[in-house]
Amino acid sequence: MIEVEIKAYLKEDVEDKIEKEAEFIRKEIQIDKYFNAPHRDLSLTDEALRIRTYENSDLSVLTYKGAKIDPLSKTRVECETEIGDPEKMENILEKLGFFYVFTIKKERKIYKIENYWISHDNVYELGHFLEIETKVSGEQDLDAEREEIIKLFRKFGIDESSFERKSYLELFLEKVKN
Amino acid sequence: MIEVEIKAYLKEDVEDKIEKEAEFIRKEIQIDKYFNAPHRDLSLTDEALRIRTYENSDLSVLTYKGAKIDPLSKTRVECETEIGDPEKMENILEKLGFFYVFTIKKERKIYKIENYWISHDNVYELGHFLEIETKVSGEQDLDAEREEIIKLFRKFGIDESSFERKSYLELFLEKVKN
Repeated sequence: MIEVEIKAYLKEDVEDKIEKEAEFIRKEIQIDKYFNAPHRDLSLTDEALRIRTYENSDLSVLTYKGAKIDPLSKTRVECETEIGDPEKMENILEKLGFFYVFTIKKERKIYKIENYWISHDNVYELGHFLEIETKVSGEQDLDAEREEIIKLFRKFGIDESSFERKSYLELFLEKVKN
Repeated sequence: MIEVEIKAYLKEDVEDKIEKEAEFIRKEIQIDKYFNAPHRDLSLTDEALRIRTYENSDLSVLTYKGAKIDPLSKTRVECETEIGDPEKMENILEKLGFFYVFTIKKERKIYKIENYWISHDNVYELGHFLEIETKVSGEQDLDAEREEIIKLFRKFGIDESSFERKSYLELFLEKVKN
């Protein structure tokens, strides 16, 4: 499955505009623990390995994200599965030589328009972002879907100058470094 | 968690003896897919990484086993968690550079005496085995628990000459080689 996704930094509140156009699905607090690999530096290969847990929920998910395959969007291969016990999963990763890097915590409000998932993220210490995402099974639909996502951003008054291709993890590590 | 476990090759049927002493829990068919790592050969380090699925069940489990820490038994560190989607888990492992090695399929009848789990395994193409296992939280109890397990084997008429320290995967790979 390929995830076609664009993220934009929010300079102003667009909540009203989103609520007019899209269906509100739910709000959740996500806690994402990122890991790196012993045999290749996933920050250099633009990959990501993450255990996501949720405040007030027993759900946990292990996610692998491949390198971005498009210069504008965050489009990339994504594989994920639910896991029963996030601490045991972390133990398994560590026994195999993987190591913990960083935790990103955010409040996410999720909306939907047709096949497009819209996430309004309040990322602790980074600010507010809007992500619009859809999933495609083959590379043939990538360009068309990316154009549709750009149109949706314009509807909310957001243009390409606000697009942010870096992951929250990258933004966080940059901030910590500076 | 440390798994204290001894396995014995069964030269004759001990089913009646087990049924007299232990409580029958369930029968299941386990399909174990083993994987190796890109950065160290788990067959040389005596580790194992496995996705277990079951015939007629949606349950799937990811398990890491550390190197054996005792010359007689199969005692070793074990970490495991349920996973929602075994195929997606396999995809994640492969994206991270892990690779599939072998599948072991067996019918397992599970019995219990106090804190001891007894598995009567009919391993496809390898034969019948009996495994007795318990879990301890620290190394201080290892020797006492191993002695208890050896006593249980004697109750079933099985002595140390039948003990097999190699994993089913090792036995299978030896068989394929010869």
